[in-house]
Amino acid sequence: MDLNCDLGESFGAYQIGSDEAMMPLITSANIACGLHAGDPVVMQRTVQLAAQQGVRIGAHPGYPDLQGFGRRNLDLTLEEAAAFTLYQLGALSAFARLVGAELTHVKPHGALYNQAARDASLASVIARATAKFSRSLVLVGLAGSRLLSAGLDAGLRVAGEGFPDRAYEPDGSLRSRRLPGALLEDPADIAAQAIRLAREGVRVETGGEPRFWMVETLCLHGDHPRAVENARVVRAALKQAGVLIQPLS
Amino acid sequence: MDLNCDLGESFGAYQIGSDEAMMPLITSANIACGLHAGDPVVMQRTVQLAAQQGVRIGAHPGYPDLQGFGRRNLDLTLEEAAAFTLYQLGALSAFARLVGAELTHVKPHGALYNQAARDASLASVIARATAKFSRSLVLVGLAGSRLLSAGLDAGLRVAGEGFPDRAYEPDGSLRSRRLPGALLEDPADIAAQAIRLAREGVRVETGGEPRFWMVETLCLHGDHPRAVENARVVRAALKQAGVLIQPLS
Amino acid sequence: MDLNCDLGESFGAYQIGSDEAMMPLITSANIACGLHAGDPVVMQRTVQLAAQQGVRIGAHPGYPDLQGFGRRNLDLTLEEAAAFTLYQLGALSAFARLVGAELTHVKPHGALYNQAARDASLASVIARATAKFSRSLVLVGLAGSRLLSAGLDAGLRVAGEGFPDRAYEPDGSLRSRRLPGALLEDPADIAAQAIRLAREGVRVETGGEPRFWMVETLCLHGDHPRAVENARVVRAALKQAGVLIQPLS
Amino acid sequence: MDLNCDLGESFGAYQIGSDEAMMPLITSANIACGLHAGDPVVMQRTVQLAAQQGVRIGAHPGYPDLQGFGRRNLDLTLEEAAAFTLYQLGALSAFARLVGAELTHVKPHGALYNQAARDASLASVIARATAKFSRSLVLVGLAGSRLLSAGLDAGLRVAGEGFPDRAYEPDGSLRSRRLPGALLEDPADIAAQAIRLAREGVRVETGGEPRFWMVETLCLHGDHPRAVENARVVRAALKQAGVLIQPLS
Repeated sequence: MDLNCDLGESFGAYQIGSDEAMMPLITSANIACGLHAGDPVVMQRTVQLAAQQGVRIGAHPGYPDLQGFGRRNLDLTLEEAAAFTLYQLGALSAFARLVGAELTHVKPHGALYNQAARDASLASVIARATAKFSRSLVLVGLAGSRLLSAGLDAGLRVAGEGFPDRAYEPDGSLRSRRLPGALLEDPADIAAQAIRLAREGVRVETGGEPRFWMVETLCLHGDHPRAVENARVVRAALKQAGVLIQPLS
Repeated sequence: MDLNCDLGESFGAYQIGSDEAMMPLITSANIACGLHAGDPVVMQRTVQLAAQQGVRIGAHPGYPDLQGFGRRNLDLTLEEAAAFTLYQLGALSAFARLVGAELTHVKPHGALYNQAARDASLASVIARATAKFSRSLVLVGLAGSRLLSAGLDAGLRVAGEGFPDRAYEPDGSLRSRRLPGALLEDPADIAAQAIRLAREGVRVETGGEPRFWMVETLCLHGDHPRAVENARVVRAALKQAGVLIQPLS
Repeated sequence: MDLNCDLGESFGAYQIGSDEAMMPLITSANIACGLHAGDPVVMQRTVQLAAQQGVRIGAHPGYPDLQGFGRRNLDLTLEEAAAFTLYQLGALSAFARLVGAELTHVKPHGALYNQAARDASLASVIARATAKFSRSLVLVGLAGSRLLSAGLDAGLRVAGEGFPDRAYEPDGSLRSRRLPGALLEDPADIAAQAIRLAREGVRVETGGEPRFWMVETLCLHGDHPRAVENARVVRAALKQAGVLIQPLS
Repeated sequence: MDLNCDLGESFGAYQIGSDEAMMPLITSANIACGLHAGDPVVMQRTVQLAAQQGVRIGAHPGYPDLQGFGRRNLDLTLEEAAAFTLYQLGALSAFARLVGAELTHVKPHGALYNQAARDASLASVIARATAKFSRSLVLVGLAGSRLLSAGLDAGLRVAGEGFPDRAYEPDGSLRSRRLPGALLEDPADIAAQAIRLAREGVRVETGGEPRFWMVETLCLHGDHPRAVENARVVRAALKQAGVLIQPLS
């Protein structure tokens, strides 16, 4: 099981996240690319930190909306969505090259992630832009989402993502953050869900036999007050359950 | 002699320059990278246009100052200057990769170009960032400037740039745009200066024997009302004078 | 009948529109406020130009999306929409104060205008933010739209806007720009529609008796290649038809 | 003695400062205006918080450089500096109007503050832009600086600012942050300097008799880990020393 975290989200004088504390606890870093968060200096430092710790370096492209932190839907044309994705992959890859590394994966951020999970056209242009940039990139998306099937269609390796600290609906989607109980708070619950996701994936019950969507990477949030503690709990629980923690590629 | 032009400077609904008309007249395009001008869609289209016409694709990184079009001095630290340069090289290279091309050269824009011509520390970080990105890039700078020596120190091939339509001071610097006569207006004068720059380079007379700074690329401005006409005049004059027009690399 | 035009949409080195040529032909200027277009220097110059020509100075607030020119839907919360509106009214009013004038009207731009025409909640927060800024402002919106009823509810004077060069659907909405025939091209058609809008308003035929939505201001586009010519034709036609051209307030 | 603090510097998801904790400890809030820090939602909330606590609402305009937090020199023309100042005063005043208040003072931020302290031309355009916006605004600047004389020339009331936690040079300037000892760390030293600044002002010894520059407002930093504690210590020390704490106007 891969453990990923969104990092490099600071901007200028603005600090977000606990990048230094999270880095030793994960196997894959999704690094913001300067449009919804991050700036060139932050990107360079985060890539260097990841490289020093042997953490895989991935791009975390988002909508060009710093004030909204990439969490607001932005009505890009498909041509724009492709070009903004490529731009961000390229920009981050320059810093990977600086440390003699290659980007290993791409995980869209925020509203782009959520829209690409449902919208097949958007998913397709993101997947194809990623494949054009490099066929060896792994495309990370919500387990069971359209982004993953678009990635496969584009000839990419894909990885389904699960969230140990988010409640799931019976149809396999994440419970909206606007609803009560959307976030698991008890570390024991989070650990148990991590193990469940690793062993069986996301359980989908929409009548008839339950189905299961494979989870190959777990998202550990880095900007929560208990982020580091939760990450440690999840790691320990996975190890105890015999789940091997290793990067996607 | 290489003929270069700054292109891809449009942004969203805002149009600048005559990219389609200039492209057939030049051998090297310096393409804005989204921080002082350009956006991902414009970058993609400009790179595609250059590739279609066999024009070399170079990065034109500038200060992150869209409102000032990269023409205002911005007091970046050296670490920032290096990171902002790398960011832009990476971003543009993604679009080059899309068309199966590689970036061939880097020419800083506006205030970054002017400051790097005089400031050895800034010149050095730009040159080293460029070399870290790719040792096969040609670094383009003002003929005789510190950027060129910094490029050589960083192990890069460099190219001195000359301006057919700008007046030169006896010390080889460009006459400030704030002074009268800074811009040559008569096409015949522009053509004559192009030939002079191609044959002897920039003449420097600061007492004693004149020196000459080699010019390997001429800048054709693309946003002047007579840009296309001037470019045609320069091309024709160079050809008639027996100067071979060919890209830097 | 008031004649309005969206002006002050240039940004830094980027020029849009024919502000100087349009100004003498209109009675109300809707001036961009720096978030979707315009910058402080452009705003100051545009306000000064309007004041010199006796043209009413209105705010043209838009979404904070310069790259999209405010034409993309942006999923702001209602609190954000209100705050971004107030911000822009305040910023523009500083320049009005500089020339001893007051803002007379507010007309949202682009996607904000279109969304506020249909979405009663968004319309309401824009109207209330405007009213809190000043009860003497006229709120300009699409004739028949929710923005106008929201303005009335907020205690504002409102003005329905008509478009001489846009085709209307039978239900009184503007034909989408994606459909053929959305833009009237023939100056004679544009002039005829201007007179019709001035005399009878927007005709709405959705079964039964036709209704008419009053039009108190006509929008003259300033960024069309024939913008100035079309504006002259509309003015002349209205005068000949005996329609008095005068500002809203 | 007035106690001021720079507040409202958060942006979108990015939090800076302890606005809620600082507000009860100060008499004047300098609120960021969205260009170097702050956004419309943050501005509205900060103004409302100040109004609730009876704290004076002032504008804290800065350079349009969010990534540099307004701390980098930016080479604006004087026309630009004036327009960017007016823009920010107007934008903030809209939120003051919302709570039935008026802006009481203006204090430039960061590099704009430092450049306006030394550069008489820049000081003059800021002072005149402020005076044009409202003659009842108090212009706050470094004690002894050119911004204050420019303010007086523009017909404004001015207030010299002192820094309890910064070391001063014998010539009355602040010791550069790049030098050791620039920041006082011991709360007792900070309190003692606050009392000294309140009683005698900034002591200037450049040969001959020492001079004293009057200090009418003390800056309490809000983004330091011990910001709130230091503010309490300064308040208590001033009270014990019999210095009356009250707003500028």
